[in-house]
Amino acid sequence: MKYKPKGYVKPQRVERAFDTEIEWLVDRNDGATNFEMRKFIIKPHGSIPKHYHPDIEHEQYVIKGRYTVGIDGETFVVGEGDSIFIPAGSVHWYENNGQTDAEFLCIIPKREDYKTVYLAQDENHN
Amino acid sequence: MKYKPKGYVKPQRVERAFDTEIEWLVDRNDGATNFEMRKFIIKPHGSIPKHYHPDIEHEQYVIKGRYTVGIDGETFVVGEGDSIFIPAGSVHWYENNGQTDAEFLCIIPKREDYKTVYLAQDENHN
Repeated sequence: MKYKPKGYVKPQRVERAFDTEIEWLVDRNDGATNFEMRKFIIKPHGSIPKHYHPDIEHEQYVIKGRYTVGIDGETFVVGEGDSIFIPAGSVHWYENNGQTDAEFLCIIPKREDYKTVYLAQDENHN
Repeated sequence: MKYKPKGYVKPQRVERAFDTEIEWLVDRNDGATNFEMRKFIIKPHGSIPKHYHPDIEHEQYVIKGRYTVGIDGETFVVGEGDSIFIPAGSVHWYENNGQTDAEFLCIIPKREDYKTVYLAQDENHN
């Protein structure tokens, strides 16, 4: 589809995350050939635990809310209008300590297989 | 860079467009390998004329405002939260008839050469 109004894509629960949903806004089913665009919604007190993707990078844009992103040992408190780049292989996690939903876009390269490696919360990749 | 706060990237004028600016939020200079994320800002009464890219698709997300997008002869009035997919080769244009800035993200595949073909406003590609 070329046009999807807000609310057209139904949110799905994100496995292994807490109070987090994903909407696949533009993906291979629309004819996307190179990358796919998703929206994440993390509810207050929700989080996505520490993980990495060996061969998938993320480009992200914060739509609303205020939350914390960890990338390779660095921590960023991000808000509306901020941009984030998470290279393939980088360990990352998210935590919404705010009072409102955190929403961000996350664009990934189109791959046959979406590999994710989860780490214990106190474990580091390198 | 992994994190860019809002306002960090300076807007540039878009050639051949009217009252339109672009911010390259995440691009090859940050290490992006597969795609690049830009933000467009079209001022009230601004527009981007009819054109197409032979080998570059667009995935877009409307951040704010209300404006009109033409894609291959179809016209969509879009607003905050809407998603748009413009396949490579599709003729498209934008017009902000609203009273406020129109802002949208536009993600494109990373290419050495960004080919654009402009058409006369009353001309069709196919």
